[in-house]
Order: sequence, then C-alpha cells, then structure tokens
Amino acid sequence: MKILLKNMDVISSDTDNMLLKNAYVAITDDIITTVSTREEDVANFEPDKVFQGTKFLAMPGLVNAHTHTPMTILRNYADDLALEDWLFNHIFPAEAKLTPEDIYWGSMLAMAEMIRTGTTSFADMYYFTDETAKAVEESGMRATLSKSAYAFEFGSEGVKFIDQREDYKAFHTKWNHAAEGRIKTYVLIHSPYIYDMESMTNSASFAKEMNTGIHIHILETMKEVRDTTAKYGKDGASACLDAGVYDVPVLAAHCVHVSEANIQMFADKKVNVIHNPSSNLKLGSGIAPIPAMLEAGINVALGTDGTASNNNLNMFEELHLASLIHKGAAQDPLLVSAKEAILMATVNGAKALGFEKEVGTIAVGKKADIILIDLDKIHLTPYNNPLSTLAYSVQGSDVDTVIINGKIVMENCEIKTLDIERIKKEVTKILHRISS
Amino acid sequence: MKILLKNMDVISSDTDNMLLKNAYVAITDDIITTVSTREEDVANFEPDKVFQGTKFLAMPGLVNAHTHTPMTILRNYADDLALEDWLFNHIFPAEAKLTPEDIYWGSMLAMAEMIRTGTTSFADMYYFTDETAKAVEESGMRATLSKSAYAFEFGSEGVKFIDQREDYKAFHTKWNHAAEGRIKTYVLIHSPYIYDMESMTNSASFAKEMNTGIHIHILETMKEVRDTTAKYGKDGASACLDAGVYDVPVLAAHCVHVSEANIQMFADKKVNVIHNPSSNLKLGSGIAPIPAMLEAGINVALGTDGTASNNNLNMFEELHLASLIHKGAAQDPLLVSAKEAILMATVNGAKALGFEKEVGTIAVGKKADIILIDLDKIHLTPYNNPLSTLAYSVQGSDVDTVIINGKIVMENCEIKTLDIERIKKEVTKILHRISS
Repeated sequence: MKILLKNMDVISSDTDNMLLKNAYVAITDDIITTVSTREEDVANFEPDKVFQGTKFLAMPGLVNAHTHTPMTILRNYADDLALEDWLFNHIFPAEAKLTPEDIYWGSMLAMAEMIRTGTTSFADMYYFTDETAKAVEESGMRATLSKSAYAFEFGSEGVKFIDQREDYKAFHTKWNHAAEGRIKTYVLIHSPYIYDMESMTNSASFAKEMNTGIHIHILETMKEVRDTTAKYGKDGASACLDAGVYDVPVLAAHCVHVSEANIQMFADKKVNVIHNPSSNLKLGSGIAPIPAMLEAGINVALGTDGTASNNNLNMFEELHLASLIHKGAAQDPLLVSAKEAILMATVNGAKALGFEKEVGTIAVGKKADIILIDLDKIHLTPYNNPLSTLAYSVQGSDVDTVIINGKIVMENCEIKTLDIERIKKEVTKILHRISS
Repeated sequence: MKILLKNMDVISSDTDNMLLKNAYVAITDDIITTVSTREEDVANFEPDKVFQGTKFLAMPGLVNAHTHTPMTILRNYADDLALEDWLFNHIFPAEAKLTPEDIYWGSMLAMAEMIRTGTTSFADMYYFTDETAKAVEESGMRATLSKSAYAFEFGSEGVKFIDQREDYKAFHTKWNHAAEGRIKTYVLIHSPYIYDMESMTNSASFAKEMNTGIHIHILETMKEVRDTTAKYGKDGASACLDAGVYDVPVLAAHCVHVSEANIQMFADKKVNVIHNPSSNLKLGSGIAPIPAMLEAGINVALGTDGTASNNNLNMFEELHLASLIHKGAAQDPLLVSAKEAILMATVNGAKALGFEKEVGTIAVGKKADIILIDLDKIHLTPYNNPLSTLAYSVQGSDVDTVIINGKIVMENCEIKTLDIERIKKEVTKILHRISS
C-alpha cells in the first residue's frame, strides 16, 4: 500500500531536521520513501491513501519502553498503599490467580489502549510471554518481549531460581524477528534485589550466548539501594556490572536512586535508562535524576510501567510529566525541553528497544511507524509552536491515526486490528473471577 | 427541567457519604432534590430526562480555582524559557496588543475547553473583566471574577498605581450575583511583589467596604520571597497580613515557597490556598508543601493557571498531578490520596470561590453542577475502585455530560451553549494579528 502525508507539519525526531513545516511523507509498503518540504519530490508518487495536512500533525509512533501489559487486569485494583503492602498483600495474590488465557486478554487490552493513545512499540516484562507475543502479532504492534531464563519463586527459605533456559530458547526460536520482524525477544532479570549474583550472572551469560539483550528493574526505591548494598556489599546497579548485565544491550527501568558513579557507569556501558515518571511518583519511589543522566549522554527513554502503578498506558502523560517534573523539582524551567521530552518518547525509546535501525524517526529508509494528531481540538487552539503543542497540550485522545510497519492500524480513532468490545468483556470477566 | 441520574455510581465529595454505589440523583430546575441509593426515593419523581447509570460515573463539576482565561490566545506561544524572559520579553508584549474583544474571544475559548473537560466553576484574574463576565453569562458557567481596584502600570520610575475603584464599583454592581447568581466579583491584587504596602492596604480596605473577597498571587517563586523580604522587611505572605488582605475571603494562588509560620498564619486566617501543579512545575517555580498545608487544616483547592504556563485548562490533569507529585517528592505513597485530590478539585474549590453554599458536592439542596464520566473506555476497563479511577485514570476527554445550575451545558461531548467553530476561528485570527 502507498500512503501520502500531504502538506503536513512533521515532528521527525531526527535531530538534524526536527520540525518540517508543510511537509510531504511518502510510504511504500512498510518503508518511508520520501520526507520533503517540496511537493515536486512526490510528484510521481501515486498513493492509495492520502492524509491531508492542515488537520493533522505527524510524529513517530511513541515507544513505551517499560511496561507489564497484562497488568491492565489490575487497573485501579489497589492504590494509595505503601509499596510492600501493595505488592505482597494485593498485587501478588491477584497475579497468582492469572491463567495464560488471562494474560492474552490483559495484553490485548493493553495494546488497545496503547494504540488508541499513539504508542506503536513497547518493551514488556511479565510471564506467560507466549500469550503476549500472540497478542502483538494480532494487534500489529512492535515489541521487545522479555522472558526469564531463570524464573524465581518465593519459598519458605527465600527466593528459589528455576532454570528455564530451554523454555526461553523455544520462545526465542518461535518469536524473535517474528510477525514481519515486529518482535524481538530479550532475557528478563527482575532486579538485583530479587535475583542474586549467581542467577544474574547466569542470565547475563545466557543473554550473551543467545546474542540478545536484557530487560531489568534497577534501583527503583531507596529501600532497594539499602537492601542490595547489604546483599552485595555494593549497590544493585554496581552488582549488575559485576554480573555482566551491561555486556549486552540492556533496558534498565527506573534508575531513580542512582549515584553519580552509577550514572557514569551507565554512560560508559551504554545502558538504556527507562524513566517511568507516573509510576515513580505514584508509588512514592522518588524523582529520577534525568537531567544529570541526559547531561552524561545516557540514552533515556520513557515508560508507563504497569497499569497497577500508573494507572494507565498513556505515553502522552509520561511525555508531559517528563517535561514538567524535572523543571519543578530543580526549580529550573530550562531543564528537559519539549524537544528533549519528545526525543525520549520516540527515537530514544526505539534505540532502547533495539529497534533503532527500523523506527524512532520519520526519515527515508525507516519503517513507517507514524501517528497523526488531530489538531482540530479546542485545547489545541490556537496552533502555535508544534513542539510545545505536543509536549504540553496534546492528549492521548487526540491521536487520530496510527500507522505501524506501513499498515494503518487505527484511523479516525477506530482500531482496525482488535475487537475492542470483546476484549473489554473478557478482561472484565477475568477481574470478577480473580476478585471473588 | 427535571433530570434523573439512575442507578449510577456517584462520587459526591460529601465526605460523610463520599461514594454511593448504584445511586439515584434527582434534579428539579437548578436544585438537587434527592440523593439516595434506594430507588423508592425517586418513585414519584417524573423526569424529563434520564441518564442511565451503568455507562456513567457522576461527580460534582470540577472547580478551576485559579486561571487567566483570556490567555488561551497565547497557548504554546512561548515555552522553555526562564520566567523573566518568558514574562517580560514574550507574554507582556503580546498582551499589550489585546483589545477588549480579543479578551471576550479568549475567554470563550477557555470556557469551551473547561466545559469540555468537566470544569463547571472557575476563578479568573485578568483585565477587561467585563468581557469575561459576558462570556460567563453566555457559556452557562459559574465564576468568581476578579478585577483591580488599583491597577498597575510599569513606568520608567517603577510601578505606578491607578485608582480604579469607581470602575470596580460599576463592574460589581453590574455583575455580582448576575447570570442567575452564577457570577461573584472579587478584588484583584496581583501580588505583594508587584503591589506595595499602600496599594495592598487600599485594595484590602476597599474589598472589605464592598463586602467581597480578594484574588491574589502569593510567593510563587523563591525570587519573590527574596524580593518581597527586601521590600517589606518580611516575606510577601506576612506583608499581606499587615495589609489586611486576609481580613476578607481570599484566593491565594501558588503559595509554593511558604514557611511553617506562613502555613500556620494561613490556617489561622482561613486563607484558601490554590495549588497549580502544572504551572509551578513548568515554570520551574517548585513544588508547594501541600501535604503540610492539608495537615494544618488549610482549604487547598486546585487551579490550572493560564494556558501560557500550563499549557491547557484541563482540571483532570491538575487532579492527577496533585495526587502524584507529592507522593514522589516526599517518597511517601500515602500522601494526597485519590479522595483528597478529588476533594481539592471539587468541594475545596467551591469553598475557595465563595460558592460553598451553592455547589461543590452532590447533596440535597445544592445547585446541580454535576458531570458524567463515560466509563465505556479502553483505559477505564476494567472498572475497579471509582476513586482511583477518577484520580489516576480518567482523562478530561472522558467527560460526556456537563450540568451547570441544573442546565445541560454539554451532552454526548457536544457543548450546547457555545459556537465552537466560530470561537476557534476568532482566536486563531487574533493570534495571527498579534504575532505579525
């Protein structure tokens, strides 16, 4: 299929060419073939479908670089609690009741929400990962899905690790590069506070052997800093270095309580830091030192975390928060500009997920993951600076059209790949079962 | 007109009765006549219009307790700048070009946005206030509008004050209690950093004489603390006490940099503090000590501030931010619960605006300012705790119906009182004129 975006303002996330006014973008099958402000450059292009510019603003699809999709089932299930109470007395007992089929429907609901609010790629961390992969295939999204090589169980004698490398291999063989290349598989390490040196080292060696990356939580709370320091004789981020976690591409979620030495280490080892502002605020984890990490040259991307701690999967909220909270916390309005926040939500996310060659910018040769914002809204009037508009005013509900891998997955706010009514019904049924 | 909300979950903001499941609310003309969970209590009620429950969640209309409505014209006009540069080099020069008619259209656009996102009342601070009052009358909203008794001008010899008490009196006579009682008029004092002791004292005496309240900015930035301390020999909040500002009902916006002594003073003098989280973050002002103020028993309400520093008028964003940022900043997930944030956005706002007898809760005898949230959304599925749903998941765009003073002002997302296309066109025209 050939698609033309005609006479449209484009925020490309290509830093050399961030904003193109009244531009033309041609898409042939899954590839962006032209990006230009000169109409003559598309004179010979014969599109099957044209999106007219004045109504829309185009940008790369948002990348949700850290989430737990099936947790949509637990949206607004337990809130305003201390972290340990929330996790051990509410979330874990509910999760223990979930079946693989539940995970499928929870993932489907998450993808419906993400597509509806302009996210085209995500990095997931959960279990029964085959089910999430099936849902990715059907939804048309792009994802880096992580699965444990060493699963953990809480027993009477503490945490027990179970070698699941064979399961991982089967998963990897089936899903890595599957769904027209929209899926990548990564090794999941929950965190240095739940894992130990042996299970982290084994997982990291295995990831290297499989030639893949790692998705991990690092230093989300002050308690983790204390606990990992007691456990390893050094903070959890440094323990990960010893375990070889950073020797492969790594998605490091949270990194709220990191030292200057940790930041330098992340920069040296090219760790991708995933900032989850809503979740870190809501759970009382704290405010990550993002300006210092950007200053150190770290690739910082954004994530929603799971709905149980957010409580939604709306990347425009994360973009908005990321652009606001650091200015306020440091009392410096020049920190994290609209442009920087947009880059974090797009190209930095693509890089973090290992999809930087494929997507993240609107540029010739990239796969077409593009969203169109409907500008004809009260709260987007009058239309001034497009970058400010995106960072400070646009809502997830303003996304009109979503193109992933050159395919129109949503148009006029209607998702074409998913049966929304069925998904809502199934998830509501699951909730009633696990709550009873 | 008689309206019935039937079999609907109701968040009443009446703390004795915060959440009513499957309730019935009857409205006769402008008044709420029944609130009950027993269907038999509305057995003899013959409504002209029924809203069915399962689809909706009802709550009091949101109260935006500090804004500058006409500034919608400058939405996304100047961002990511230091405060002084932003204000003196961008905002003030643009504002100097605005005519009374511009103010009317800017106010109309603001009201369209507020109604669309569930705000039913607001407190405004700007100039050409007659124009905003006209817009309130037409839009059907409820508002406390402030106008200077002593206007200020920046001259070569500093700030000059102009006695405009007669203008204020004419405005007060025309508009106080006008529009079926939907309008109140307050005296505007910009701030202790722009005003001086004489102009503050005169304004406060005048407000007392007029038997009305005051709308003022207090200690938004650290710079103001330093500057007012240099000017008055004490901080600006304490200078206001000396000037008699707190001897009448007062809307004190921001209060970011307040001392423990200031907090105790606000509690003693029953000052209404208006928390503007988006604006305080975006301008790098800081994070107001809201948990301490709530603890001290202060009535804290929420505001958006103007669109030039937000950049929208979406009170669900402020509610959401107010519920998140204090947890994160203090690393305590138990601070500012969903319930507390909802109270701040509703009943506390009504109290701050001087409308506590009329609105703020869904209770018998109150005027009917009620909004209905459409629950049939992907991101509100599954439906768990209604309070969490409101604070953490609902978006402004989920507001389906808005009732103000018993009148259906918006239904099925369509605003009935305003010509939206005309308003968008007029404001865009104004922007082009002042930008050229």
